[in-house]
Amino acid sequence: MAMPTDQLDRTFAALADPTRRAILARLTAGEASVTELAKPFEMSLPAVSKHLKVLERAGLIARGRERQWRPARLEAGPLKEVAEWTERYRRFWEESYDRLDQYLDELQGRGKEKGDGRKR
Amino acid sequence: MAMPTDQLDRTFAALADPTRRAILARLTAGEASVTELAKPFEMSLPAVSKHLKVLERAGLIARGRERQWRPARLEAGPLKEVAEWTERYRRFWEESYDRLDQYLDELQGRGKEKGDGRKR
Repeated sequence: MAMPTDQLDRTFAALADPTRRAILARLTAGEASVTELAKPFEMSLPAVSKHLKVLERAGLIARGRERQWRPARLEAGPLKEVAEWTERYRRFWEESYDRLDQYLDELQGRGKEKGDGRKR
Repeated sequence: MAMPTDQLDRTFAALADPTRRAILARLTAGEASVTELAKPFEMSLPAVSKHLKVLERAGLIARGRERQWRPARLEAGPLKEVAEWTERYRRFWEESYDRLDQYLDELQGRGKEKGDGRKR
């Protein structure tokens, strides 16, 4: 396997939490401190810090070096890997929607005549 | 939030394991029994069954009803959600690659002259 397996493991694990996904969404608007991030979630600073550590280990955020004010900023590189991994399955979800469409057509008695103008 | 949060939690958590991702990759070639899935991974049947349960709860596979031979098959619908979620971050990873390109150009002293034909 040529895929960076450990990286994908860390990325997917980091994304499996709604608060961490919400933090990433917040960071699309620009960098933010722990205090700023804690506010909308009504979470304690240590709880937010813990989430940030998971995101940082996954490479999804980077943090400033300043000791007191260490703003977090989005690092979207690992999400490119997720997109590439997921893309390989595109034809399978598209096929399943095609099959659903076909099934709904059949249920409605339109079957293969749909769009060929012979009926109606 | 309009997103199916719990579904995404389950999907990302299920994908955070290389064996489960490899099982999904195997199922792109068609449905397979637990025994068939266990072989390439040199895993016990209970270990494979456990992974299948996680994938099934996440809606990433479906299993046949037959008691002894319950073939698993890929259900790619949740991966469409992952693709859609990830897509919202595309401009951020593209921007970071653009910045990297720009930086490399600057390092090589090409700056803004790149491609305009004035140099060389």
